[in-house]
Amino acid sequence: MNEEEFRSIDRLFHPRAVAVIGPSRRRDWMWLRCFTHGRFQGRVYAVHPKEKTALGLPCFPSILDVPDEVDYVVSAVPAEMTPEIVGECVEKGVKAITIFSSGFSEVGKKELEDEIVRIARGKTRILGPNCMGIYCPESGLTFRPDLSLQNGSVGFVSQSGGNAIRSAMVGEDLGIRFSKIISYGNGCDLDAPELIEYLSKDPKTKIINLYIEGCRDGRRLFKALKEAAEKKPVVVCKGGRTKAGKRAVISHTGALSGESELWEALFKQTKVINVSDWTELSNVTLALLNSPLPRGNRVAIVTISGGSGVMNTDICEEHGLLVRKLSPSTIEILSSKIKGVGTNVKNPLDLAIDYMNPGVLPLVLDSLAKDDEIDSIIFESTFHDMVGPRWALPVVEEMRRRVISFGKKQKETGKPFFIVIPRHLFHSEREKHRRMYLDSRIPTYPTIRRASEVLERLVKRGK
Amino acid sequence: MNEEEFRSIDRLFHPRAVAVIGPSRRRDWMWLRCFTHGRFQGRVYAVHPKEKTALGLPCFPSILDVPDEVDYVVSAVPAEMTPEIVGECVEKGVKAITIFSSGFSEVGKKELEDEIVRIARGKTRILGPNCMGIYCPESGLTFRPDLSLQNGSVGFVSQSGGNAIRSAMVGEDLGIRFSKIISYGNGCDLDAPELIEYLSKDPKTKIINLYIEGCRDGRRLFKALKEAAEKKPVVVCKGGRTKAGKRAVISHTGALSGESELWEALFKQTKVINVSDWTELSNVTLALLNSPLPRGNRVAIVTISGGSGVMNTDICEEHGLLVRKLSPSTIEILSSKIKGVGTNVKNPLDLAIDYMNPGVLPLVLDSLAKDDEIDSIIFESTFHDMVGPRWALPVVEEMRRRVISFGKKQKETGKPFFIVIPRHLFHSEREKHRRMYLDSRIPTYPTIRRASEVLERLVKRGK
Repeated sequence: MNEEEFRSIDRLFHPRAVAVIGPSRRRDWMWLRCFTHGRFQGRVYAVHPKEKTALGLPCFPSILDVPDEVDYVVSAVPAEMTPEIVGECVEKGVKAITIFSSGFSEVGKKELEDEIVRIARGKTRILGPNCMGIYCPESGLTFRPDLSLQNGSVGFVSQSGGNAIRSAMVGEDLGIRFSKIISYGNGCDLDAPELIEYLSKDPKTKIINLYIEGCRDGRRLFKALKEAAEKKPVVVCKGGRTKAGKRAVISHTGALSGESELWEALFKQTKVINVSDWTELSNVTLALLNSPLPRGNRVAIVTISGGSGVMNTDICEEHGLLVRKLSPSTIEILSSKIKGVGTNVKNPLDLAIDYMNPGVLPLVLDSLAKDDEIDSIIFESTFHDMVGPRWALPVVEEMRRRVISFGKKQKETGKPFFIVIPRHLFHSEREKHRRMYLDSRIPTYPTIRRASEVLERLVKRGK
Repeated sequence: MNEEEFRSIDRLFHPRAVAVIGPSRRRDWMWLRCFTHGRFQGRVYAVHPKEKTALGLPCFPSILDVPDEVDYVVSAVPAEMTPEIVGECVEKGVKAITIFSSGFSEVGKKELEDEIVRIARGKTRILGPNCMGIYCPESGLTFRPDLSLQNGSVGFVSQSGGNAIRSAMVGEDLGIRFSKIISYGNGCDLDAPELIEYLSKDPKTKIINLYIEGCRDGRRLFKALKEAAEKKPVVVCKGGRTKAGKRAVISHTGALSGESELWEALFKQTKVINVSDWTELSNVTLALLNSPLPRGNRVAIVTISGGSGVMNTDICEEHGLLVRKLSPSTIEILSSKIKGVGTNVKNPLDLAIDYMNPGVLPLVLDSLAKDDEIDSIIFESTFHDMVGPRWALPVVEEMRRRVISFGKKQKETGKPFFIVIPRHLFHSEREKHRRMYLDSRIPTYPTIRRASEVLERLVKRGK
């Protein structure tokens, strides 16, 4: 993608005026609401053949009646009316149209899709049909009125609208902020390869996410992903890996997801990170944003329970990580301070009752950060779990403060530091801790399994 | 295990009087607190050589000074003092002693452990050392003062004390209640085989859980588990599956976990359900308690997003489940009612906007319950996710009511019905829904992956 092509796509994300064609009263004017109430700073128009006003805005019968230039349009009219709408948009000089409506190739109506492409002739670029279009906090564009418009550095290209929404919401929860999310559905015009090429060049995007079910131009996609992954971390979830999954894809976006060899080759031959669902997609992205890449696969596990240490070790090793011995100097330093009954200064580290000593945890973490035998650290935060909130709370508060101050330095130490807060009774306590860790930009996961999956991916990428 | 042997173990769970030897002021009298404040209905004694009183109870210098018979003792004195304490317990006629203290074979002091076994001579049965002992709500015994004493039907034998506590807490959260939890640590006397034989015969125990790291008598364990699994569902998590895990086991309970062949044979040749961590242990148990066993591996997936349907399908199929076509009659019934844009009455079912019609979901669930091509149903509850709480709340409330009324009947329909509530922004809403589903005894999981793992195990057990 040359500079000219890059700029022509980039402009689509920065419209001066937008219009919603066919806003729906039944859906509480959802699409129009995306641009009102101070969300979008440019001009906003509503187009509807029957409604007089919508959310206090006048409704124009057609886009051609709007007395202004319009750069970006969201069309939510029925499928069969869409060609006419696209024709009017081309006439009006609209730069991009998101076709929210479904009822095209995913239900076998390929010819209707081909027709709108023909009408648009590349003059008006099309996102969709069967998609949510653009979320771009910088320019105030969103596909859900309740999403935050905080700016970030993750660019997400999603063939599924539902996954685009979900990732935005999960992202907000985890502190993942986006430069752009682009839901492109059936991808009749703007398709994954071009969008990946764009994000690869986009200076605002530091990490690329992709959810994809199938692609017309596999060769270009392969090349786009390979080149993007040389420049930035690229995390890909491929939908339609199994036979039944491929069948579901056809009903969803009409795509053919059959190129299994392409995908296998891609994940083998490139630095693209492969994940299997949206939970992994978010979890890996959380780590890429906040952690350094590990130099190798040797992990230290810090816990306060021996049984938990054993299970954590098994799970890490089953994910290709190594739970190796600590270096002699680390053992020497820690052994001189950690002497309580039931403690264990091997790896996994079992602090047992000595975690009550507020100096112990920082000593452990600092020693592991310096230990050349260790590439990353997983800390299982089960304190309140093990002793009950009443008794342990003051100690836990102090500990959390120290864990956070260590975790914030992880880019300096050069070692990923993840926190695992397992499920247990104290939901509100747990949620409070999780929030504080995440707000301090420490990757925090609900289980060791999730943490191991992420670390496994980071190790591969780091190689 | 004959009737006599069964009764002799069963008596250990029903003491008339208990004593705590060495309650610790530093730990806020944790062990003594387990039996006070109305928790244990029998008599409670404190034994401490230096303290005068503990929690308002007088402290006797030795168990021999207690002017009463004592059936059950928890000993929390240092390891080296333990042989003397055990000797006094034998002299006193104590039936069972839980040795909480660690510092025995797990730190290489095998001879100290052998010594206490010799002293006890089978007259006083030993749990431990290095364990939490007995949790038995029926008789008011607990190893944590803050655990509920509600009675249930799951019996859990755990080599790890931490995992015993954690399972009890996670169980409370999920509505899993226990008949007994027995944490047996180093297992110098009462060991896994005998405890499994006991639970297998115990009429109060309907489901058996086991967390085990290693066992002295592999042959007897194999036989005990095989026989138990013929009578009741038995779910086993084996700690120390990997090389590093085995090393961690030695430091934890001093056990040798080397018999990999035994474990592989066990999981292949018996009906024992194999899980890999405590999350799976709880999740599988939740389903066993509340769902029927599926007749086969054909699952129907109900969602409102196509992309989510695709990913759910891949993940189910990757767990050995089949996402097959629905029967023609189901498709006919559903097609006549579900006609909205973007809906899909194949499998996975995508209700799209039609989920807003309150009659649709019950129709879908009832049709799937009757469909001979379907063995189980997974319902992804993402309604509030997809439309935001403000707009959707009344619809969601109505839907939840209907989902619950369907889910309650799952033992009648003979098909497991699981709910998946993915992570998203609305924590309090999500938690409220999760609570209501769980309170209605519908297995509810955070991800499709967790639900698939459970269903995979149930299918295997159902064969």
